[in-house]
Amino acid sequence: MNGNRFGRLFQVTTFGESHGEAMGCTVSGVPAGLELSEEDIQEDLDRRKPGQSMITTSRGEPDDVSIKSGIQDGYTTGTPIGLVIQNKDARSGKYEPFITAPRPSHGDFTYSAKFGTRNWGGGGRSSARETVNWVAAGAIAKKLLAREGIELKAHVNQIGDIEAPDVSFEEIKAHSEENDVRCAHPETAAEMQDLIEDYQDEGDSIGGSIYFEAQGVPVGLGAPRFDSLSARLGQAMMAVPATTAFEFGLGTEAAEWTGKDRNDDWEFDDSEAHRASEENGDEPRTWGRPTPVENDHGGIQGGISSGEPIYGEVTLHAPTSIPKTQQTADWETGELKEEQVIGRHDPVLPPRGVPVVEAMLALTLVDFMLLSGRMNPDRVDDQPGKYDTEYHPSNPRNE
Amino acid sequence: MNGNRFGRLFQVTTFGESHGEAMGCTVSGVPAGLELSEEDIQEDLDRRKPGQSMITTSRGEPDDVSIKSGIQDGYTTGTPIGLVIQNKDARSGKYEPFITAPRPSHGDFTYSAKFGTRNWGGGGRSSARETVNWVAAGAIAKKLLAREGIELKAHVNQIGDIEAPDVSFEEIKAHSEENDVRCAHPETAAEMQDLIEDYQDEGDSIGGSIYFEAQGVPVGLGAPRFDSLSARLGQAMMAVPATTAFEFGLGTEAAEWTGKDRNDDWEFDDSEAHRASEENGDEPRTWGRPTPVENDHGGIQGGISSGEPIYGEVTLHAPTSIPKTQQTADWETGELKEEQVIGRHDPVLPPRGVPVVEAMLALTLVDFMLLSGRMNPDRVDDQPGKYDTEYHPSNPRNE
Amino acid sequence: MNGNRFGRLFQVTTFGESHGEAMGCTVSGVPAGLELSEEDIQEDLDRRKPGQSMITTSRGEPDDVSIKSGIQDGYTTGTPIGLVIQNKDARSGKYEPFITAPRPSHGDFTYSAKFGTRNWGGGGRSSARETVNWVAAGAIAKKLLAREGIELKAHVNQIGDIEAPDVSFEEIKAHSEENDVRCAHPETAAEMQDLIEDYQDEGDSIGGSIYFEAQGVPVGLGAPRFDSLSARLGQAMMAVPATTAFEFGLGTEAAEWTGKDRNDDWEFDDSEAHRASEENGDEPRTWGRPTPVENDHGGIQGGISSGEPIYGEVTLHAPTSIPKTQQTADWETGELKEEQVIGRHDPVLPPRGVPVVEAMLALTLVDFMLLSGRMNPDRVDDQPGKYDTEYHPSNPRNE
Amino acid sequence: MNGNRFGRLFQVTTFGESHGEAMGCTVSGVPAGLELSEEDIQEDLDRRKPGQSMITTSRGEPDDVSIKSGIQDGYTTGTPIGLVIQNKDARSGKYEPFITAPRPSHGDFTYSAKFGTRNWGGGGRSSARETVNWVAAGAIAKKLLAREGIELKAHVNQIGDIEAPDVSFEEIKAHSEENDVRCAHPETAAEMQDLIEDYQDEGDSIGGSIYFEAQGVPVGLGAPRFDSLSARLGQAMMAVPATTAFEFGLGTEAAEWTGKDRNDDWEFDDSEAHRASEENGDEPRTWGRPTPVENDHGGIQGGISSGEPIYGEVTLHAPTSIPKTQQTADWETGELKEEQVIGRHDPVLPPRGVPVVEAMLALTLVDFMLLSGRMNPDRVDDQPGKYDTEYHPSNPRNE
Repeated sequence: MNGNRFGRLFQVTTFGESHGEAMGCTVSGVPAGLELSEEDIQEDLDRRKPGQSMITTSRGEPDDVSIKSGIQDGYTTGTPIGLVIQNKDARSGKYEPFITAPRPSHGDFTYSAKFGTRNWGGGGRSSARETVNWVAAGAIAKKLLAREGIELKAHVNQIGDIEAPDVSFEEIKAHSEENDVRCAHPETAAEMQDLIEDYQDEGDSIGGSIYFEAQGVPVGLGAPRFDSLSARLGQAMMAVPATTAFEFGLGTEAAEWTGKDRNDDWEFDDSEAHRASEENGDEPRTWGRPTPVENDHGGIQGGISSGEPIYGEVTLHAPTSIPKTQQTADWETGELKEEQVIGRHDPVLPPRGVPVVEAMLALTLVDFMLLSGRMNPDRVDDQPGKYDTEYHPSNPRNE
Repeated sequence: MNGNRFGRLFQVTTFGESHGEAMGCTVSGVPAGLELSEEDIQEDLDRRKPGQSMITTSRGEPDDVSIKSGIQDGYTTGTPIGLVIQNKDARSGKYEPFITAPRPSHGDFTYSAKFGTRNWGGGGRSSARETVNWVAAGAIAKKLLAREGIELKAHVNQIGDIEAPDVSFEEIKAHSEENDVRCAHPETAAEMQDLIEDYQDEGDSIGGSIYFEAQGVPVGLGAPRFDSLSARLGQAMMAVPATTAFEFGLGTEAAEWTGKDRNDDWEFDDSEAHRASEENGDEPRTWGRPTPVENDHGGIQGGISSGEPIYGEVTLHAPTSIPKTQQTADWETGELKEEQVIGRHDPVLPPRGVPVVEAMLALTLVDFMLLSGRMNPDRVDDQPGKYDTEYHPSNPRNE
Repeated sequence: MNGNRFGRLFQVTTFGESHGEAMGCTVSGVPAGLELSEEDIQEDLDRRKPGQSMITTSRGEPDDVSIKSGIQDGYTTGTPIGLVIQNKDARSGKYEPFITAPRPSHGDFTYSAKFGTRNWGGGGRSSARETVNWVAAGAIAKKLLAREGIELKAHVNQIGDIEAPDVSFEEIKAHSEENDVRCAHPETAAEMQDLIEDYQDEGDSIGGSIYFEAQGVPVGLGAPRFDSLSARLGQAMMAVPATTAFEFGLGTEAAEWTGKDRNDDWEFDDSEAHRASEENGDEPRTWGRPTPVENDHGGIQGGISSGEPIYGEVTLHAPTSIPKTQQTADWETGELKEEQVIGRHDPVLPPRGVPVVEAMLALTLVDFMLLSGRMNPDRVDDQPGKYDTEYHPSNPRNE
Repeated sequence: MNGNRFGRLFQVTTFGESHGEAMGCTVSGVPAGLELSEEDIQEDLDRRKPGQSMITTSRGEPDDVSIKSGIQDGYTTGTPIGLVIQNKDARSGKYEPFITAPRPSHGDFTYSAKFGTRNWGGGGRSSARETVNWVAAGAIAKKLLAREGIELKAHVNQIGDIEAPDVSFEEIKAHSEENDVRCAHPETAAEMQDLIEDYQDEGDSIGGSIYFEAQGVPVGLGAPRFDSLSARLGQAMMAVPATTAFEFGLGTEAAEWTGKDRNDDWEFDDSEAHRASEENGDEPRTWGRPTPVENDHGGIQGGISSGEPIYGEVTLHAPTSIPKTQQTADWETGELKEEQVIGRHDPVLPPRGVPVVEAMLALTLVDFMLLSGRMNPDRVDDQPGKYDTEYHPSNPRNE
């Protein structure tokens, strides 16, 4: 309601401003018994953190996460996980000119107009610094999904007018972390890097987009209509700062495809043949589950996952804070002013946005996994334990 | 959670299957005192209903809405409005071949896989017939928004590879209902019509897209982060059947724009000059509120409305039910089969999707209006009344 | 938010006013595959309906329920179940005097003050007629719970100063429907009946209370803290019209008990001995699960079900609409008036409240069953089916 | 859903275990512009904290609250307020015997059975230590309510079989903090103190109850049916640890009252006479708003506030952790054991429960104030500011 909560059963609640004392989030709905440490979370935070390369802001935040609750002997307990990340390198002084003279196309004006006040240092709550919380929560979601065989990954597939050719999921996994741009196609990554540096040198910034994919998603996630998998992904991705478009499957291109071309015919998945019948002691069955021959539908049919990979794309506009001179209007003095946003800012968002998009994808999928009953919302089976009232692994709910 | 509810304060809950007895929805959270009749709702239903032209399905549904509750003497009472729309022209027989042999890229397979059963007549719950409920609820939302000076409208701006040139909001209002395609640019509409008929003749279908715009939205709607105006619009629009992309502002094009080009400089809105100061008895002020000189940001900054028009685009893929032969896999018999979807189907979705997109836009905006406190959630002031414990219009909350 | 929805995964949304055209509710979150007919629902509606005895209102409502959606071939489909119950015997005329002169302690004044309008016929939305929706939805919940071995029942245990002695769950099941008062202790029921008739003859009404109990509830329902089983039962029961108190376990009496007396020591449940160990191939175990020796805790410990019966009590105040003369203040004319509420009203609420309390208990428990993952939210296994993409009963989620 | 969130617009999300590193909560939905400091919160925390008297646990927690976000220059910013309270005096060793041998009637067994694990130190998440979060959030709610003229207070009105006579709201405010028991009737407080000490000396504990009252609540809070003011208070209060009963108005006594006796006749509130008419320029009106002559209804009619004080009572059972010998069953060894709970425990709960009950009352009321539109959800007018895009106090929503 107030915008600080995401998820229905896997619930993330966040707080924090860019230059406040700390960022933090509470992750509620994590089943008990999952092995989890600060290191598990830190890995993704390091992919998102500032100062990691020449094409990211130079702000020096270690982004060390501290787990305050919800873990016992290295395993989750089913109770909320409180996470806190201290802000250490906030330098608010450079933002003073903008207190009453809003930066163009940033949240400065709308926050002040809505709330009549605003934490102006570093953009306060409107800063993309908030996504440190999302990535932290997403790391927990990813760990749960991995237990279920669900793997997901993103990479940068466009910067300015440079588009990467299609790459496979395996290539994304292999190459996206090899360069600062996080583009899985090395040659394109180099071109993108050059382009970004050109804009950076000019005091300008540039937009781009991120491709994401999830594999191993079971058939049946999602719900008819308003909570369809695509609708909830839409909300998740459009919440990512600077996002102006969300596409899945063919995306905007689908406007030009005919039904015959886009429709994916059905065949049988032979790998599953016999399975169901034998398990049930029925007569042998020589075919498996219907499976689409292609995946132009993007892994979602009727709002529900089809078992095929879910893939799509998110467009992020250019960072609004740029050194180039822009005009603003000071609402206190009535002056029109030319201003330059000095601070420490990213010249482009997708490279650091990759773990953010992955996090939102993971948070959305884990929520649907819990809602579908495919994961036990109370506990997973990792933890050997004398805490259990039953000999492990006998679970009362399987009685 | 289960996908049958939309909205947080303005809540729509729907039921119904394509070939079931009736469609229906409950609209809860409508303030009391709004003048409302079945006619107010019917108008938009007629824009969505089947059989309205040669390029829509020939199914003959009058889609007459019946209000079952929540209205007294022609005004809303603040209690839930129950709406029922009978299904009258359901012919399920033609769907029998698909009970165990799913139509390509439709929800047939995923519904059966998820629920182990499925209302197969006409696609059951996965049918776009459900949107009759959305349009009905949206009509109430529009009426409330109109009282607040918010106006919204959509039109078809692409069919296949035919794109309409940019048209103004005034043109959309003037022309979008003048042709069967609902494209506000008459010449393009004629071309689109030809293209659709060509595909229809071939037994195929084609995709397209819808442009939407809302004017008069006040500054300050939306909330930081997960419930940003763009995130909630994303959910709303991606829930529209067959949607594969949602864009606002520059959309996917933003990837290619630099910060300097996309950023909208600030100037003063002179029309508001002096206002605040005089009202407060302060010294005269000679400037108004900061206002962006352009609207490349699409009316949303930092997830919150900027006061500029909100505009964007939704891509709808081609209808999946087509007469052309396709391959399916019958999970009961194990046969691969060639099938033709006969039934009565639309060759293209955007023309009937226009009121649906408008409805989802209206439902999203009215919800934010209520959440922002800009509208009184209990009552509006239309109804003169002896029911009120105070002389009208003295409202207890204004004491 | 607006008060017309109950439940988190098992969601009931209602509409309707006492003298409106129809009552109705949408039940969303019912797993697919449950055999369900209108008769299943009608049985409980008949226990609640008016005119069933001399001590209920004489309004003649058959309360026939019509299922509009969500059922296919006699089984649920996992999509929302739309229910409509026509109002047939509304006579609003007798309520005209109260339009601007509120009945004492009824919702007449507060509804008008809040909404500035009010459906005054029969109390409109504030009438207990609304509970017809709750009982209808509750009947579906009960059917699901029965499949899981959960049984629940209520009876009237106090009318005025006449309290029934404690009776067993078996006695409640055997006797509560044998008399008009719905008290499972026949001798007390006769006394209660006399008392009610005395007040009825005087033109007055009387309060009372309902005892409820649920057996077979598994260990582990509920959640820490705000959504504890007792908190959610508290909400559910306090929503029942005219309820002024909710108690579980010892209830208000717990104030006088010491810790030593109230605490329930632990022993082993021998009936479960060996089970876990043998199943796991471990060394034989000669003891079962810890079980409390008594149940003074009322089946809930730390907000979570203990496996013992859940029991408690709900107090309903006397009906406010009585023939005896009362003073009201007409806000239109400024007159103080003496009025008599003629209409057709119950002299006492608990007898018809029994199925309502059962319904709210069932709705609360089924929601927790779904939230706990103990029930598959998508489907149950009743329906043999060619609709399933797998040979029944192989469920994709059990792969 | 997971039990760690309370509130719909005023949202509290909590984390923390009794012996974990820290407790904490995020309060989202606090309007901007409210002056707020750690001292404002600390005052109530000190009323709840352990070690404050001989009849509370001797655990030494300073319970110093630290605000991590959401405040700028001493005023709220409309963004979430992160609060952290370090745990400093945790001594878990004494809880080791109970890891696999649950304390009678505590949450030890149910938590282990549900989650298969448990933070056993000090009861972990099931400990009433969690309520430190509630009191912190409640302090913010109280401050907002005070601005609206709503005042609330609780006191202990029963310990064991000692009941306090009725006292006025003024007396509660004057005297409840004068003694360790927090009973506003000094003579009774002394008796209660003796009784508590007797049980303490015996190694036992005792139950009791808390009376609460809110004054200044405007007419019209609450919503029809499931979200009635009484239903949401029921949830809030039944969530308080150890609560076994919630009553409002006459509570359980209402069972014995007739309609005629309980109903509150209407008269006119002369203090409001003329007001509405004059303001509207209408002809003079010589009467005010209908007002009940008494308040046996407890301030809520038809689930909506009547403008009269809201009052009720909460029963808390005796603390379960007692030094007296009790029997437990060790699920690991299969032994039945006699155990004594040594630790540091309260002999009675109501004295420290008073600020907890007040907090839940405040959280419930402030939520309804926001939902009713009576409070601006975005901002209050305390803060003079250059942050506002308009000259203060001109609020864009009042345009």
